Amino acid sequence: MTTTDEYLAFAHLLADEAGNVLRRHFRQSTPAESKEDGSPVTVADREAEAAMRVLIRQRYPEHGIFGEEWSRENINAPLQWVLDPIDGTRAFMAGYPTFTTLIALCENGVPVAGVIDQPYLKERWVGNTVMPHSLRHLPQDGGRPRNECGVTIATTSLTCFTAAQAAAFARATAGHTVVHGGDAYAYAMLCDGHLSAVIDAGFKPYDFCALAPVVQAAGGVITDWQGNPLTINSSGEVVAARDAEVHGQLLRALKHVL
Amino acid sequence: MTTTDEYLAFAHLLADEAGNVLRRHFRQSTPAESKEDGSPVTVADREAEAAMRVLIRQRYPEHGIFGEEWSRENINAPLQWVLDPIDGTRAFMAGYPTFTTLIALCENGVPVAGVIDQPYLKERWVGNTVMPHSLRHLPQDGGRPRNECGVTIATTSLTCFTAAQAAAFARATAGHTVVHGGDAYAYAMLCDGHLSAVIDAGFKPYDFCALAPVVQAAGGVITDWQGNPLTINSSGEVVAARDAEVHGQLLRALKHVL
Repeated sequence: MTTTDEYLAFAHLLADEAGNVLRRHFRQSTPAESKEDGSPVTVADREAEAAMRVLIRQRYPEHGIFGEEWSRENINAPLQWVLDPIDGTRAFMAGYPTFTTLIALCENGVPVAGVIDQPYLKERWVGNTVMPHSLRHLPQDGGRPRNECGVTIATTSLTCFTAAQAAAFARATAGHTVVHGGDAYAYAMLCDGHLSAVIDAGFKPYDFCALAPVVQAAGGVITDWQGNPLTINSSGEVVAARDAEVHGQLLRALKHVL
Repeated sequence: MTTTDEYLAFAHLLADEAGNVLRRHFRQSTPAESKEDGSPVTVADREAEAAMRVLIRQRYPEHGIFGEEWSRENINAPLQWVLDPIDGTRAFMAGYPTFTTLIALCENGVPVAGVIDQPYLKERWVGNTVMPHSLRHLPQDGGRPRNECGVTIATTSLTCFTAAQAAAFARATAGHTVVHGGDAYAYAMLCDGHLSAVIDAGFKPYDFCALAPVVQAAGGVITDWQGNPLTINSSGEVVAARDAEVHGQLLRALKHVL
């Protein structure tokens, strides 16, 4: 087992732990409050992230932790765990089973392992940089033929887009079917072949770091809107596609290259 | 058993039949095409509605049928089955388990029985005009205390709103948490207490007729934006709330009454 595989095995444990917390809170009267940026946070977010932090501190006390809900730890460590206990807190609050837990390990800023976990449906997608595609952890209906519905593109929420980003998104999606909503669950559905592409903007590192290894392990292509690989310092613009051809088309439209 | 209860029992059979079709197609390579209005439709939509129509013609040949995918039958019959085989076709195509089947029976234009069915998760919400609240068909985690996160309001998609409707929506939701997406699944989550309200516009009769009996049976309030009961001829503006107080507040904001 390589070190990277060891880290991915540990990421599974983190997802299990977060899932135990989230299943207790989902569709209950979980109190919520507004954060400084106006986005909601629940006790489930905080408890799930705290539970993962306890495990990381025990096993890898020298690693850094960069989570959505609590302050950074070991900020200069080369290995950083990047955690979003609930991606899609609004979906979680509404009772929609499409929220996920996102876990990434970044090495010198580069995501090398990732997990997208949906604990209510017990669906999980994982990836790391040494994983052959055949080893990825597929949900029960994974591996089926890709959707043939033409190009179907998802986006989390246009409300996060600047005017220029919204114009670029409109160019890229002209003539295609657009699915609104989904958060990281859309990237999981991309991995399973149900979506052609996902385009987002305004993402934070804990929103996107986990996505890169998972999408790449599934054979997809994921970069920022300039075509650069995602790192912990990326801008928060993300474009992921099922193959290089679709990715290239979208990238040209987003960059307005004719 | 009253006649209305008989119809609701039959509506369960229709939902079972549609669910059998949809489970076969969900997360498969189901071909899709664009309808005249640009919205997508899949063979799953068409097959599920056709299967329900066969059952209705056998059991109630004198009843009318008003479905999204095929032409109307017995258009002057006082009893009309109003069918949306897949509410949330884009979600269905993307693999999100939040699409639903909607079934309503309207008597002289008034919805008297309704079903919201999620066949992949096997969740179903029903209602009719003679149903005591305690008899409604709850999913496994129904009946828990209502969410205490303040006022959380869902909407299917602002892209269906006119500019005036968008302004009214902004007034009504100011200061509250807004959840985008969900289609009819949002109304089901309202019934279970996870959302305070749902506001939509641009709905067709097959999008909203089933919602009214279900929300009312769960103790909620649902009308158009003028406060009128929903009928098969309603405008397509819908506001549903967990109680009369929240409904009244939203209605005043939507109508701009100070």
